Amino acid sequence: MILALAGGVGGARLARGLADALPAAQLTVVVNTGDDFDHLGLRICPDIDTVSYTLADLHNRALGWGLAGETWEFMGALARLGGEDWFRLGDRDLATHVERTRRLALGESLSAVTADVAKRLGIVQQIAPMSDDPVRTFVDTDAGTLAFQDYFVRRRAAPAVRGFEYRGADSACPSPPFVQALADPSLEAIVFCPSNPWLSIAPLLAMPRMAAQLRASGRPLVAVSPIIGGRAVKGPAAKIMQELGLASDTLAIGRHYAGLLDGLVIDSADADQRAAIERLGLRVLVSDTLMDEGPRRLALARATLEFARTIGPRSS
Amino acid sequence: MILALAGGVGGARLARGLADALPAAQLTVVVNTGDDFDHLGLRICPDIDTVSYTLADLHNRALGWGLAGETWEFMGALARLGGEDWFRLGDRDLATHVERTRRLALGESLSAVTADVAKRLGIVQQIAPMSDDPVRTFVDTDAGTLAFQDYFVRRRAAPAVRGFEYRGADSACPSPPFVQALADPSLEAIVFCPSNPWLSIAPLLAMPRMAAQLRASGRPLVAVSPIIGGRAVKGPAAKIMQELGLASDTLAIGRHYAGLLDGLVIDSADADQRAAIERLGLRVLVSDTLMDEGPRRLALARATLEFARTIGPRSS
Repeated sequence: MILALAGGVGGARLARGLADALPAAQLTVVVNTGDDFDHLGLRICPDIDTVSYTLADLHNRALGWGLAGETWEFMGALARLGGEDWFRLGDRDLATHVERTRRLALGESLSAVTADVAKRLGIVQQIAPMSDDPVRTFVDTDAGTLAFQDYFVRRRAAPAVRGFEYRGADSACPSPPFVQALADPSLEAIVFCPSNPWLSIAPLLAMPRMAAQLRASGRPLVAVSPIIGGRAVKGPAAKIMQELGLASDTLAIGRHYAGLLDGLVIDSADADQRAAIERLGLRVLVSDTLMDEGPRRLALARATLEFARTIGPRSS
Repeated sequence: MILALAGGVGGARLARGLADALPAAQLTVVVNTGDDFDHLGLRICPDIDTVSYTLADLHNRALGWGLAGETWEFMGALARLGGEDWFRLGDRDLATHVERTRRLALGESLSAVTADVAKRLGIVQQIAPMSDDPVRTFVDTDAGTLAFQDYFVRRRAAPAVRGFEYRGADSACPSPPFVQALADPSLEAIVFCPSNPWLSIAPLLAMPRMAAQLRASGRPLVAVSPIIGGRAVKGPAAKIMQELGLASDTLAIGRHYAGLLDGLVIDSADADQRAAIERLGLRVLVSDTLMDEGPRRLALARATLEFARTIGPRSS
C-alpha cells in the first residue's frame, strides 16, 4: 500500500498516476485542508475536490480545477443578485459543496464525507483529508496577513510573501484514515506529490509530531520536486521561494525537505543539482517529472514507486 | 397604494397584473412564508421567489415555479452524490437561496433580503414576507402530520387533509413593510390574490390579531376566488376543500372569508352563486378570473381595483 500526500493540481496528477500504477485500493491519498474555507455558507475543500475529480477522471483539464464540461449559471445569477463572485463555483461542483456542508452540519466527519463522495464518484482508491480538525493557512504578505483564498484567488497570489501561519494545526489530529494508513503493515512507501511545499504540504507537517510520525513509520519517504528548471510547473511556488529569499530551484526543495525525506525525484533538466542534493543526505532519482494526462503521468508514478522500493524500509 | 396578499402561482399572477395596472411603486405584495423551509442548508422561500420572479418577468411559465430557461446541472450532480433531490432547485434559482441564506446568517432580516433581491431583479414594486419570524405550515393528514413541503412536493399533495397547523404564527409579528403598508395613509385597498385560502392566506391570518388589523385599516378588503367552476385553477385547493368536508365551490370560498372580507371577485362560470354569496354579507363582482400571461391578467387586476374602489373605505 502506498500513502501519497497531496495538495492541488500537481499533487492530484501524480496521485492519479499512482492510482493507475497500483492495484485498485492499494493507494491512500491524504490531502491538504489548509486551503479549505467557508464561503457563501458552504465548506469548500479545493484540494480534496481537485484530487477526487482527478481520480474520477472528471476534472477540468483546461481550468486546472473544477469539473470538466462545467456550466456557470449559478455564478451568473449570483452576480446579478450582488453576491460574492470572486471565487468561481460551477453548477455541478456546487453540488459537492452543498452536500458536504449539509453532512458536516449533521455531525459527519470530513473524512467520512470525503470517502463517501469519492465512492459515489466511482473512485476505488482511498481519499482522506489530512485532518478532520480545521487547519487554515494564512499568508503573511506585504499587504498584511491574508486568509489563503484571499491571497491565492482574490488577489491572484500577487502580494509578496513573508511567511505562513497554519492556524489550528497545533491542535489538529491526523484524520482516522491517515492514522490508519501510517499504521498499516502493508504500507510500502510515503510519497510527497509535487505540490507546493509551503502551501500544500506544510499545513500537514504543522500538525503536532507529524514529521516524527512519518519517520516512525519506517517506510521510505520520497518526494517529487514541484520545481523544474527553476520554475514551478503550476502555481506560485517559484515566486514564493524568491519572496522567502530562497533560490527557486530544485536544490532549495532538497534543502527544505532534508532531514525528513529519504529521497527526491528531480527532473532531468535539474540533473546538475543531483550531487548537491545527495550531499544533503537525500537519495536522488533523475526522471522526467513534467506530467501529462496519460503516459508521462503513469511513467513518473512507476519510476517514483520503483525508486521508493529501491530505498526500502528504514530501521529508524 | 394597493396592498396585495399572495401565495404562489395564482397569487403571483394577479400581483403581476396589479403591478402592470398601477403606477410604479404603488403596490406592496405581502407574501406567504408558511411554505418556507430549510433544505440542503439553504432557506427556501417558494412563494416569495414565485412572486419575485413573476414580477421580474423571469418566471418559468411551463413549470409554474422557478426561473425561465433554467438549467439543472446542480441537481444532476447532487443526485449522483446521493443527495436529496426530491425538491428540485435550478442552477440559477439556487443563487437566490444561497445569497438569501448567507445574508440571513449575517443577521439581515428576511424583509431586507427580499427587498434587495427584488431590487436587483429590477422590480420597482415592494415585495415583503408576511413576517420576519418563522411561521411553518404543517398539514394534518391521514398519513400523519407532515411539514408542508413534505406534503406538497415530496408526496404530491396525495395524503387526505384533516387540518392545518401554522407553527410559530401565534408569536409572529407582521414584517415591517407589511405594518408600514397597513398604516400608509395612501392605502386604497387590500387585495387577497387567488391563492389557496388554507395554504397561502391562512398562515398570515394566523398571526395574532391579523384579521382585526386588516379590518382596522378601514380599507376595502377584496379577494379573487381561487375556485372556478368547482375546480382550482392550479394546486390542490379543491381536493383539500373536499377532504375538509366542504363543497369545492366559490360559495364555500365566500363562506370561508365571510366576516373578514368586503367583496369577492368570482368567475362568470360561478355567476349562479352570486346571490348566495351576497347573502353572506359580501359584495360580489362577476368577472373573468382565469388569467393568462397578458391581457386577461391585466383585465382582472383592473376589474378588481375598480371593484375595491367602488366599495370604498369603511368606517369600522
